[in-house]
Amino acid sequence: MGTEERRQRERDEIREKILDAARDLFLECGYDGVTMRKVAERIEYSPTTIYLYFADKDALFRELCMTDFSKLGEEFQKAASAADPIDRLRNCAQIYIQFAVDHPNQYRLMFMTPKPDSAGEEDLAIKGDPNRDSYALLYSLVTAAIEAGSFRPEYNDPQLIAQTLWAAVHGVASLEITHRCDVWVKWTPLHERTQAMLDGIMHGLRPETKKSTTE
Amino acid sequence: MGTEERRQRERDEIREKILDAARDLFLECGYDGVTMRKVAERIEYSPTTIYLYFADKDALFRELCMTDFSKLGEEFQKAASAADPIDRLRNCAQIYIQFAVDHPNQYRLMFMTPKPDSAGEEDLAIKGDPNRDSYALLYSLVTAAIEAGSFRPEYNDPQLIAQTLWAAVHGVASLEITHRCDVWVKWTPLHERTQAMLDGIMHGLRPETKKSTTE
Repeated sequence: MGTEERRQRERDEIREKILDAARDLFLECGYDGVTMRKVAERIEYSPTTIYLYFADKDALFRELCMTDFSKLGEEFQKAASAADPIDRLRNCAQIYIQFAVDHPNQYRLMFMTPKPDSAGEEDLAIKGDPNRDSYALLYSLVTAAIEAGSFRPEYNDPQLIAQTLWAAVHGVASLEITHRCDVWVKWTPLHERTQAMLDGIMHGLRPETKKSTTE
Repeated sequence: MGTEERRQRERDEIREKILDAARDLFLECGYDGVTMRKVAERIEYSPTTIYLYFADKDALFRELCMTDFSKLGEEFQKAASAADPIDRLRNCAQIYIQFAVDHPNQYRLMFMTPKPDSAGEEDLAIKGDPNRDSYALLYSLVTAAIEAGSFRPEYNDPQLIAQTLWAAVHGVASLEITHRCDVWVKWTPLHERTQAMLDGIMHGLRPETKKSTTE
């Protein structure tokens, strides 16, 4: 490995370390409670080093969101092979819940934490691009499913359906993250809860004739 | 108003103030980041005063959970008048989402924050009592609905159905709390999302014959 290559790898590793420390801190202290100094202290670097990588806390937070959403976007590519839009939606739902369980801290910061008002506005250029904006991907799959006649006629608002499906998987994923150790509830296995939710909501949204043949 | 009565009211007010400050702090700093001293500083009381009301942080946290769950339990009483178990489930679902929107901080602490492992174990005496344990109420309504033949025969596990319905309403409620100001999503009104979720999941779980007549 050449010197330049090694340096680049070191830079990538430090960058990753800063992002991980920042994610933990944003979760622990909320957006307002985090400072660049605290991030530096957490990984025992000088604040000066941190500033070589990120201009300020805002840039750090934005980068964190972009990194984590890109990771989720890559996962969603695995669902691309299914031709039927309902199959793709179901695959994406499974991938989404698996992502949440595999990366609970990323998931908590992405979907379970109120964001500062300004967050993400600078990145709105990618809004609507299904390859980089997860909500846009969901919306495009729902639109394709509506056009293919895969939902009952009264379910014709793609925003409403997308938001309902998102809430369905988010409900399963987020309860798993926060309540999996809850002594008050005798949990059924996660894959059964995932299956029951997807079967239930899809059965509810789809026309009678489609249900008996495909589900 | 007599002196004793006034004193009691003052004590109740201070107690409420401590609980509110503690709830904010638990949300901001996580369980481990809160100390009795921090709670005292937040409301500009001496730690000694706080200790007159709560023995330690654990007691404060438990009391907070009990208070908030009691409040939700009281709300659920409003659904008691419906005779049909499915109607009661639907009413409870509406009440649950309304509670989340009206009391977002309470909701975040109750349902969106991982609890310390030990939390609540001392209160397990009320576990299973539908009047004081919200999950037990949900479970009892689901059991009644299964016994009344209100779900399709393959949906016969009350735990699985209860957890699916909970995830459905939690998904709607928690996305509303964290993402209502999200510039990436063009939200439909909350009442439409609530309706779509309840219609969708209930339609999915209920037998064909029941659907056409009651929904």
